[in-house]
Amino acid sequence: MRTIAWRDGHIEIIEQTLLPHELRVVEIDTVDALVDAIVRLAVRGAPALGVAGALGVALAARLALRDGWSERTLAAEIERIRNARPTAVNLSWGVDQVLPSLPLGAEAVTDAALALLGREVAAERAIGERGADFLEKAVGHGRDEADEGRLRLHTHCNTGALACVEWGTALGVVRSLHARGQVLSVVVDETRPLLQGARLTAWELGQLGIDHQVVCDGAGPAVIGRGLVDAVVVGADRIAANGDVANKVGTYGLALAAGRAGIPFVVAAPESTIDLGTPSGEGIEVELRPQHEVTTWRGTPLVPDGTSALNPAFDVTPADLVTAIVTERRLLRPQRGETPAGRI
Amino acid sequence: MRTIAWRDGHIEIIEQTLLPHELRVVEIDTVDALVDAIVRLAVRGAPALGVAGALGVALAARLALRDGWSERTLAAEIERIRNARPTAVNLSWGVDQVLPSLPLGAEAVTDAALALLGREVAAERAIGERGADFLEKAVGHGRDEADEGRLRLHTHCNTGALACVEWGTALGVVRSLHARGQVLSVVVDETRPLLQGARLTAWELGQLGIDHQVVCDGAGPAVIGRGLVDAVVVGADRIAANGDVANKVGTYGLALAAGRAGIPFVVAAPESTIDLGTPSGEGIEVELRPQHEVTTWRGTPLVPDGTSALNPAFDVTPADLVTAIVTERRLLRPQRGETPAGRI
Repeated sequence: MRTIAWRDGHIEIIEQTLLPHELRVVEIDTVDALVDAIVRLAVRGAPALGVAGALGVALAARLALRDGWSERTLAAEIERIRNARPTAVNLSWGVDQVLPSLPLGAEAVTDAALALLGREVAAERAIGERGADFLEKAVGHGRDEADEGRLRLHTHCNTGALACVEWGTALGVVRSLHARGQVLSVVVDETRPLLQGARLTAWELGQLGIDHQVVCDGAGPAVIGRGLVDAVVVGADRIAANGDVANKVGTYGLALAAGRAGIPFVVAAPESTIDLGTPSGEGIEVELRPQHEVTTWRGTPLVPDGTSALNPAFDVTPADLVTAIVTERRLLRPQRGETPAGRI
Repeated sequence: MRTIAWRDGHIEIIEQTLLPHELRVVEIDTVDALVDAIVRLAVRGAPALGVAGALGVALAARLALRDGWSERTLAAEIERIRNARPTAVNLSWGVDQVLPSLPLGAEAVTDAALALLGREVAAERAIGERGADFLEKAVGHGRDEADEGRLRLHTHCNTGALACVEWGTALGVVRSLHARGQVLSVVVDETRPLLQGARLTAWELGQLGIDHQVVCDGAGPAVIGRGLVDAVVVGADRIAANGDVANKVGTYGLALAAGRAGIPFVVAAPESTIDLGTPSGEGIEVELRPQHEVTTWRGTPLVPDGTSALNPAFDVTPADLVTAIVTERRLLRPQRGETPAGRI
């Protein structure tokens, strides 16, 4: 099952706002419906949004052909897709990847979009396999014989199929290890304020039949400190040239705990996450999200009237705490001086 | 205002289940009402429960006199108070503190209970002042001149008046510093799963007029890593002989981040928290609380059906990460070899 797919001339997505309580696949056959799905976060996650952008151009080109849109109308509709979420660079990137095929017709654009989707799927698999190879070796000697050497893993937020297209990034590593019979259990941080771990990662692991337990984010470092996990594997929002990693807030505490416990802390992300234009984490601006995400839950206040909140979307883990960065192309060990920018 | 007090022959408590949305003081003039208040967590926190136990014996002695209870009935009622929450050792401790006065009559028991309350209030003040003295010196040179040298503090869970009697422990340190005009702002971890930080600490700081912001627990280490606070001050559930500290889960991540950032990590707690019978944190059994605290919020599921959770109530911070332990009697610096058991 894919989070986003192309079928009979329209887009299909898993309606993520209904998860974990209902799994519904929604057919999208207008630009309005696609923009609406993106705005409502019915489809989310950088890789999935890239594919949504590309397939969106294919959909628009087909509609233009069928309904006789002018070139100007078509261009305007494509811009609406591109700007559905202004800060999601992957959406715009997906649009740009297929635009060169537009003059060749709707079929050519569709082919280009499907090729991009195929590359995404392959990249996710490659990340999963490379991460699994690394962890099998890295944890090798410390494993408990009573568990037949299977791994106890710890992850944060949602980096599975739902954030991607089919396999996932960090959760894809877990999945590749599971396919090899190497996973004993997974600790899932609930990931406040939006609970992507509790809602989405727990759902994906349940679907995959992988044993898991949800913990509050504050318990993450404690679980590591008590020796209850063998390795931590997380995704990334941006990786600086020196190997500093920006990821969903709560990641830094896990990295500190993993460092102290002497267990691997692995970052799994596509090459597109690496930003050589940012020398280090110092240069990464931390997005502050709306306070109400912290101060209310489904409209009910959690704090006294008038209380303010600080709601950083992500945090920055220094490269010296990162055991490995795994992409679809390579394995980097920042602690050994291997950075995205080269050896230091 | 006190969380628990004695007025005209009955007990008064702040009804904490209504906070932060309503501040109501409830009169308690029967043993039934007291037991009910303790069971419902209308009064909570170790120091407050100790006082509740002592005042409860005074209340029972007065009712026995008025209503002509037999000695046996009085003893049974006192046992009901003692066992209202079986794991709360302070409740039982409070009862035992005043029992020797029982043969001397209801007035003598009341006097003993009020003396205990007075000692608690004095101890809280002493912790606050000693902690404030320490932090004023410890942070002295790193302070921002633009803020007139005032401190940006970080705390976890609720350690204020609501968990104590009047002044608080860790939040009492904040309060003592505030009384000296030394507090710029306080970062408050929301403290999942029960949100004592978001609900109770935010309310107390609001009442005191101290500037504060709530953060998700996962953001705590990040806020410290980004240099947004000058010191962390927390309470303790138990302190081992070697200085290892058990406290509400989420504390360990803050200690790791404070250590890396090179800022003071201060533990403020009464001497009664020190357990010389436990050599180190290794010997502290971590209480696992019900899964539903994590998996639901006010009855609404937060996770997919059937998802399990791991809900440790506290975590253990190793002594080498603790800059200072402050009690009503002394200041210990575990990093300098000063432990509750003596120098190492």
